[in-house]
Amino acid sequence: MQNPSGTSLSELGEFGLIKRLTQNIVLKNSGTIKGVGDDAAVLKFGEKYCIVTTDMLIEGVHFDLSYVPLKHLGYKSVVVNLSDVYAMNAQPKQITVSIAVSNRFTLEALDELYKGIKLACEKYGIDLVGGDTTSSVTGMLISITALGEAEPDEIVYRNTAKVNDLICVSGDLGAAYTGLQLLEREKLVFKTNPKMQPELTGNEYILERQLKPEARKDIIQSLKNIKVKPTSMIDISDGLSSELLHICTGSGVGCRIYEDKIPIAPETIKMAEEMNIDPTTCALNGGEDYELLFTVSLKDHDMIKENPGISPIGYITEANTGYNLIARSGQTAPLTAQGWNALLKNK
Amino acid sequence: MQNPSGTSLSELGEFGLIKRLTQNIVLKNSGTIKGVGDDAAVLKFGEKYCIVTTDMLIEGVHFDLSYVPLKHLGYKSVVVNLSDVYAMNAQPKQITVSIAVSNRFTLEALDELYKGIKLACEKYGIDLVGGDTTSSVTGMLISITALGEAEPDEIVYRNTAKVNDLICVSGDLGAAYTGLQLLEREKLVFKTNPKMQPELTGNEYILERQLKPEARKDIIQSLKNIKVKPTSMIDISDGLSSELLHICTGSGVGCRIYEDKIPIAPETIKMAEEMNIDPTTCALNGGEDYELLFTVSLKDHDMIKENPGISPIGYITEANTGYNLIARSGQTAPLTAQGWNALLKNK
Repeated sequence: MQNPSGTSLSELGEFGLIKRLTQNIVLKNSGTIKGVGDDAAVLKFGEKYCIVTTDMLIEGVHFDLSYVPLKHLGYKSVVVNLSDVYAMNAQPKQITVSIAVSNRFTLEALDELYKGIKLACEKYGIDLVGGDTTSSVTGMLISITALGEAEPDEIVYRNTAKVNDLICVSGDLGAAYTGLQLLEREKLVFKTNPKMQPELTGNEYILERQLKPEARKDIIQSLKNIKVKPTSMIDISDGLSSELLHICTGSGVGCRIYEDKIPIAPETIKMAEEMNIDPTTCALNGGEDYELLFTVSLKDHDMIKENPGISPIGYITEANTGYNLIARSGQTAPLTAQGWNALLKNK
Repeated sequence: MQNPSGTSLSELGEFGLIKRLTQNIVLKNSGTIKGVGDDAAVLKFGEKYCIVTTDMLIEGVHFDLSYVPLKHLGYKSVVVNLSDVYAMNAQPKQITVSIAVSNRFTLEALDELYKGIKLACEKYGIDLVGGDTTSSVTGMLISITALGEAEPDEIVYRNTAKVNDLICVSGDLGAAYTGLQLLEREKLVFKTNPKMQPELTGNEYILERQLKPEARKDIIQSLKNIKVKPTSMIDISDGLSSELLHICTGSGVGCRIYEDKIPIAPETIKMAEEMNIDPTTCALNGGEDYELLFTVSLKDHDMIKENPGISPIGYITEANTGYNLIARSGQTAPLTAQGWNALLKNK
């Protein structure tokens, strides 16, 4: 069935593969406003637009049940999808949840998973409206689709940034990645000596960012309150670099961001230094922070700077100036996408 | 993480598990018309209703790549979801496709899969609007969500059958199951002696029904043309018995169907007899036919009987008379759900 002399998928990478598989798709329905290529698809049902996004999480690739509690996993599985809907400047309303599990899992285990799923639904005001439940050959798989709603003129895409726009991020970056590194380190310690207790105290913030992230519903609401509509937006699931490059290549523009403006929490810096990783690298390439990266028109700068939860980190430039990071030293380095790549990770 | 003394999932079965996991779900959004519990969810966006359904297919559980061509698999993965949308008397419009593959698969293999996906989209006028692509630890996983559209008064649920309604099925039943049995038999022969060529000629019909099923868009259109709106409807993915019991228990009614009225193709009967299985058992419990099972008001009988693609097989009775099959011999037997159960199959 599979040609052993064919092209290996890791050569293409996730984005290359998606591009290849979705090329030549011609949209046929007038109700399909936006198909593949943003955080979510946009569909027209009557007056309102319906936003659809989907994510698949696989044990051993996206999560490790040796340190991820099932309830947290359920919560996070929902949140990562809601984050995609908010990144369209829309309100998530419903989800479907499909799970596949091997017979290693008990009903009580699934109850825990669903407790987390339902907690996220409760917190974000979402209805669980369907799904599929089946058995797997190995491990646990979770596939969630989220549906959201927006007025047609509210939707914000990723390919509409303009030259001179401010580049902003919500919250802080790199925490989820350092949290993951800590969990991996303690797992290794435990494997070597099962009597060792994991040293997690004092690191609650980065652990929570990894295990129980939140989607930035509050930022979307704040922007609405101050009547600032971003010119482009994306959520940060793969790391700041990768997402910013999506905005720039999609919009046909360049960018210039400043290392010293990238928001990084003290706990993240402390753990990164303890592990001998550059905190900026964690923020640029770490991923899984589920913060929002967006651009706003320069005229909105005054409104934005009042909000402590939003950091301007640079601005959009002409395409021919490239994608640049101005380091603390004053040196300019090209931004490259080294985001988390599920296709490469599992080689 | 998993309690070894917990409840095993196979004790509950798929429907028991779904019921357990989705209990206590309180719908919060006024736009959620129907959540868990039918072929698809029904959501309100503006004037129109949006129908959402999702299915997960897993290598080794739902398909066997040793005899399923990837292109057919892609086609079928789409069709099974569209079938759920038609079963709501709605028109499918968009799908999202998430796939996970191990590094055993090449790009060329995924191209084949997507050829089938795109062919189904082409044939049914569907837009592929999004998805997720990732790596798996083992094998291939496909999770598809389909979205459809309907006017609010067009939607047909499964829990609205009325006493005295006629019970009808489209097409013929049991073919997909005998097709699967044939493929499994020839696989076994091939394993024993790889020089043996599989004997598939003369059985094209049942093989196609298994490998490349179609969703009954035409039946939905026919019913519209003759202005017959079913009183309840479901698609037959798990076998006639299981689906009819869903309608009856959901509607709080009983049923009486006649063995000699159940439509079974000559090719299905021939193969069933060759394999020493009762053809009626194939139709009742085989599954994967993706025909429509629906009830219509008695007054519509004359309209229905003109359509050679629709077979009346019995009628709805009061709940206290139970669920009955009148055999060719005249004997009455209780109908039981022994549909295909993905949770039990992979023990």
